[in-house]
Amino acid sequence: MAVDTTRLTLGRRAASEAAGTALLVAAVVGSGIMGDRLAGGNIAIALLANSLATGAALVALILTFGPISGAHFNPVVSLADASQDGLSLRELAAYVSAQLVGAVVGVATADAMFGEPTFAWSTHTRAGLPQALSEIVATVGLLIVILGCTRRRADAVPFAVGAYITAAYWFTSSTSFANPAVTLARMATNTFAGIRPQDVPAFLAAQAVGASAATLLFRWLVPMVPRSADAIVMPHRREHQPPRSV
Amino acid sequence: MAVDTTRLTLGRRAASEAAGTALLVAAVVGSGIMGDRLAGGNIAIALLANSLATGAALVALILTFGPISGAHFNPVVSLADASQDGLSLRELAAYVSAQLVGAVVGVATADAMFGEPTFAWSTHTRAGLPQALSEIVATVGLLIVILGCTRRRADAVPFAVGAYITAAYWFTSSTSFANPAVTLARMATNTFAGIRPQDVPAFLAAQAVGASAATLLFRWLVPMVPRSADAIVMPHRREHQPPRSV
Amino acid sequence: MAVDTTRLTLGRRAASEAAGTALLVAAVVGSGIMGDRLAGGNIAIALLANSLATGAALVALILTFGPISGAHFNPVVSLADASQDGLSLRELAAYVSAQLVGAVVGVATADAMFGEPTFAWSTHTRAGLPQALSEIVATVGLLIVILGCTRRRADAVPFAVGAYITAAYWFTSSTSFANPAVTLARMATNTFAGIRPQDVPAFLAAQAVGASAATLLFRWLVPMVPRSADAIVMPHRREHQPPRSV
Amino acid sequence: MAVDTTRLTLGRRAASEAAGTALLVAAVVGSGIMGDRLAGGNIAIALLANSLATGAALVALILTFGPISGAHFNPVVSLADASQDGLSLRELAAYVSAQLVGAVVGVATADAMFGEPTFAWSTHTRAGLPQALSEIVATVGLLIVILGCTRRRADAVPFAVGAYITAAYWFTSSTSFANPAVTLARMATNTFAGIRPQDVPAFLAAQAVGASAATLLFRWLVPMVPRSADAIVMPHRREHQPPRSV
Repeated sequence: MAVDTTRLTLGRRAASEAAGTALLVAAVVGSGIMGDRLAGGNIAIALLANSLATGAALVALILTFGPISGAHFNPVVSLADASQDGLSLRELAAYVSAQLVGAVVGVATADAMFGEPTFAWSTHTRAGLPQALSEIVATVGLLIVILGCTRRRADAVPFAVGAYITAAYWFTSSTSFANPAVTLARMATNTFAGIRPQDVPAFLAAQAVGASAATLLFRWLVPMVPRSADAIVMPHRREHQPPRSV
Repeated sequence: MAVDTTRLTLGRRAASEAAGTALLVAAVVGSGIMGDRLAGGNIAIALLANSLATGAALVALILTFGPISGAHFNPVVSLADASQDGLSLRELAAYVSAQLVGAVVGVATADAMFGEPTFAWSTHTRAGLPQALSEIVATVGLLIVILGCTRRRADAVPFAVGAYITAAYWFTSSTSFANPAVTLARMATNTFAGIRPQDVPAFLAAQAVGASAATLLFRWLVPMVPRSADAIVMPHRREHQPPRSV
Repeated sequence: MAVDTTRLTLGRRAASEAAGTALLVAAVVGSGIMGDRLAGGNIAIALLANSLATGAALVALILTFGPISGAHFNPVVSLADASQDGLSLRELAAYVSAQLVGAVVGVATADAMFGEPTFAWSTHTRAGLPQALSEIVATVGLLIVILGCTRRRADAVPFAVGAYITAAYWFTSSTSFANPAVTLARMATNTFAGIRPQDVPAFLAAQAVGASAATLLFRWLVPMVPRSADAIVMPHRREHQPPRSV
Repeated sequence: MAVDTTRLTLGRRAASEAAGTALLVAAVVGSGIMGDRLAGGNIAIALLANSLATGAALVALILTFGPISGAHFNPVVSLADASQDGLSLRELAAYVSAQLVGAVVGVATADAMFGEPTFAWSTHTRAGLPQALSEIVATVGLLIVILGCTRRRADAVPFAVGAYITAAYWFTSSTSFANPAVTLARMATNTFAGIRPQDVPAFLAAQAVGASAATLLFRWLVPMVPRSADAIVMPHRREHQPPRSV
């Protein structure tokens, strides 16, 4: 059943990252708009819709694009992969570029599907130390889930990531962006899921801190190096080097 | 465990498509009525019920009927299958007819279960460019999920499709019909899930555009041809031709 | 991994049916009480809680008790099994008795956990032709899902049944009892999930009609006879006879 | 794919228990705060968020940490394991200590993410016989699900436990703490998920009763002893002794 996607060109894999990230961001932003419009002012109901739609979209999209490109959809995931000698620098650049382009396309698509201005700076304030801490925790958790499941239960990664993000919308005060490409794109929609541009740098810094902490923690916790680090998220090559030391 | 359903007659497979589509449409229309009646005017709560019930029904029904007929339940899925030399024209005609009959039976069943008129033209307006764009995006997404998962993670298709549709109810302004048979049948119920007859042609056109775009995209993205295209959705025969070119 | 549960005594298997049915009914009745108390009069919110809790409980309980006794928890499922030469008459009697005892214990447990009278006749009206039709449809659907998945995707039965029931709560006007043992026990709680004793006979008759129809339909649709019919729901013995004819 | 985690040091396994329990408790407490703040006084909506977030977090965390330490996150689970000659006393002490430390860290993290006092005694009353009975039932159910699935369907344990807890929030009047470490830590947050210190002893006693009852029941119901009892929850070693007697 496993298909040797190493034959897939980098162009195809980057297209996969762009398409997947676009659909993911469209799901985040679009379900935010729909929930907000229909919930009659009850933000909890809007967030239920937003969190369930995002988690469910992640399940479907990681199952779909995982076997093609790994379904990172997230620069810190690609970076973590590259730091483990997975993606080369050239591949990393292609992945991150594709994710950024996809995220922007996703915002525009969602806005257009709901008759909102295609791009508009968000005025949604998301600031303060608790939210910065939330982004650190959210990103630590996301990376731990991805690194942990990829190494041992790769087939379950789509379900683990979808479930984690659904939960993290609720247990962090920032609703867990945990993704720099998605964070940047969400500046460009003045709807439920938006974020004011001036609040973005703190989010990005927190995500970088969280991702670094999680990568180091896992390197100590489970000292095993996948032979090919693009096996992150949905490994297409399953071989692992033997543990170097425990 | 895999059963050679190639022995199943076309009549049995068409009956499977009809029964599955009937139950799917009954779930869409019935849960719309129940949610609408109980939600006390909060449309978001009604749509939560409607989207969760539809997604859950899809999981159960694709698991059940997938091994028998592929669980297309959707003419554009059968058409995509036929375009890849999967279903023959005779099989395609049988599948689509069965889906249409099943969808109409499903509407009547749902209406009867709730004491609504068995058939009544819908007065629910679903019009405008944003909704047409939504149907294109929804169908592109659905076909990509089906084509992507079928080729690589066929066992997960029921979960991927159920999760995708639950999300797509929320992230598109049209609530993602993405299915011509279901769209036509939903003209015939004047309840929450209905659609005015005059709004149907734009939906059908958008679905055709979306399905074509997704099929072409995937043909480029993952250039692999299943030997037997009725392997779409829940393949009963797993062999694939080797990739022709990458 | 598969354990030969044919070594398990009938007493142990009946205890498994009783414990599983008790926990299932406690989940149905208990979540109904909790949802009703907290929802502030919005019945849709109460039913969201009730349907999600019931579906989730089914996933957990079928995964747990399936490998021991098949996790029928439902006389019409055991009867369908026996009609296919699965359970012997002695086993059928033990299973159904255990399910009835378990269901009554489950109602009493739920009522006690919420400080309600342990037993009280329900005054909740559930009558009329639409509800009778609903019970037929609900039971047809449940049996088709069980028979279909058991024959081809046995490992997915817990998820298929949990998803189906969550959906069926919403798409039938009766909220899909679809289980004679549970129906009888729900007479004995005057809470959200209760049913007036005088409404029970129509429900039981509808369930019998639905179960018979589904069994006949599936015998035609997929003419394959499991060698051992106690393989229903969660087969512990996987061998099947070859299809007799197609 | 299975990695021989017996090479993992006890320190690493304890760190896994601490990290997993911290994230679990952060999810329980954090989603309680968020749900409570946004639900506009409708407790059912807050509890929907709380229960779905907790269940989803459990799925992700057990998938992630299960292969490392078994993902007990719960002293009564570790104790049940030790009682079957699984964990040694030294390992048991390390696991329970790690769980307690993790739970306290999780409460502090959740409170900090929402700008609440890091630690504050809860004033949330949870008392009375119905709630004590609820904790017994909740713990019996949790242990039965874990013991049952671990022995027969170990790969499904994350989904079974997540689904069970989501359901049990609703079908018990105590919202199913069912975990002494989590119960103790929840004294220290004066938010939605808190519990008054004076109500804790009854909860702990009920959990002990429930865990003992479930362990004894399962020892009779399925008389099979895993060779290595640290296989509880997510067994890393699959071999079992043959059934001693049935």
